[in-house]
Amino acid sequence: MKRLLIIGIGAGDPDHLTLQAVKAIAATNVFFLVEKGSAKDDLIQLRRGMIETHAREPYRIVSAIDPERDRTTTAYTEAVEDWRNRRATLYAQLIADSLEDGETGAFLVWGDPGVYDSTLAILDSLDLSYEVIPGISSISALTARHGISLTSVAKPLHLTTGRRLKEHGPTADDMVVMLDAHCSFDGLDGYHIYWGAYLGTPDELLISGPVAEVGERIKEVRAKARARKGWIMDTYLLRALHS
Amino acid sequence: MKRLLIIGIGAGDPDHLTLQAVKAIAATNVFFLVEKGSAKDDLIQLRRGMIETHAREPYRIVSAIDPERDRTTTAYTEAVEDWRNRRATLYAQLIADSLEDGETGAFLVWGDPGVYDSTLAILDSLDLSYEVIPGISSISALTARHGISLTSVAKPLHLTTGRRLKEHGPTADDMVVMLDAHCSFDGLDGYHIYWGAYLGTPDELLISGPVAEVGERIKEVRAKARARKGWIMDTYLLRALHS
Repeated sequence: MKRLLIIGIGAGDPDHLTLQAVKAIAATNVFFLVEKGSAKDDLIQLRRGMIETHAREPYRIVSAIDPERDRTTTAYTEAVEDWRNRRATLYAQLIADSLEDGETGAFLVWGDPGVYDSTLAILDSLDLSYEVIPGISSISALTARHGISLTSVAKPLHLTTGRRLKEHGPTADDMVVMLDAHCSFDGLDGYHIYWGAYLGTPDELLISGPVAEVGERIKEVRAKARARKGWIMDTYLLRALHS
Repeated sequence: MKRLLIIGIGAGDPDHLTLQAVKAIAATNVFFLVEKGSAKDDLIQLRRGMIETHAREPYRIVSAIDPERDRTTTAYTEAVEDWRNRRATLYAQLIADSLEDGETGAFLVWGDPGVYDSTLAILDSLDLSYEVIPGISSISALTARHGISLTSVAKPLHLTTGRRLKEHGPTADDMVVMLDAHCSFDGLDGYHIYWGAYLGTPDELLISGPVAEVGERIKEVRAKARARKGWIMDTYLLRALHS
């Protein structure tokens, strides 16, 4: 009775929207904007800009503040699970209170909804059905902006998190690292790094080179940008120098 | 003097085109369509349809037949290299003959140009500069159509080829397998498979379930579809059942 869309909106450039996403936004009655607090105002503005440009009147925007994740614990998976449970309660309430039967509600998700995003898992836990509109992932945006291929001929590509890279070290010649708050590339001198932050936005930062040569600069640029804007979204590809 | 664009056009649905890709197509003077022979007529038609819909007159289409890859050899990497060299010669000739200084030429690439596609490597080998427009990869299309996440919380995702999976066996709880002509998932009974072919097109096929239960059906459906259409483009995600 209630139709739910999870719309991938791309990595930051409003023109990353697909025609499918544009049509999905135009078909939406209620947009659920779950916000992270004032630090990420830019992201909220980008989402609202897309809605203003592509949504069809009349539509409603229902916004809420995202519950905070416990970042003090070392039990990462458990902290994420707890955070998801609290978000699930919030999402269930938003949908119950604000979306009428016969209406279409949408969540606008950065990048691609399938890549390290929790919206799908939250709606699954609520036993709600939904449709997913794929989006340009930050990975595709990263490699496009560097003008490089993600994969090498006949070789595997490992997608992992900063936390895992730090704990387990490199696992392949080609690795994409996401959700890395601690520059876990540090010391990986056998690799070339292709780094990008705020991809597709006017604040975009791109640095590439051997880790031994550019690693320190990335750390500095990243820290400065994060301090200035209050948040950062970045990702990088590591490619073995010998490969 | 000559501007080259490598435009990701998505996994098969014309609405996978991003607004950025639509603008890039509109800015193109010469489209290079390198065709695989009559078997893949559908793909050519899809490309031509996108050009007709979004290109701005006057534009030119320059088409050529893609050199054949030697599929008889077991030296996979060498065969691909040789194939690339012959394609590079062809591409260099097309660009030299058909694109004037000051004009913009474009290659329309299925999925995302960074994912197991050779166009970037070919233009690199010719020392030509280019811009890349990211596209919806068949991976994003696959997970979206199955309504699942590509990644699991805090876990890695391995992207690999059918050939590697067959040679090396499973390497992670979550694996995406591309370029698999031989159903290398066969026998991986510890995994759930999410399989898709002709994603985003009217011929789309989706099957999911434990490999032990649906593996045979996928093999049958795949063989039948391939025989009927003369070609197949498919990919799949394997997710460990215990995870």
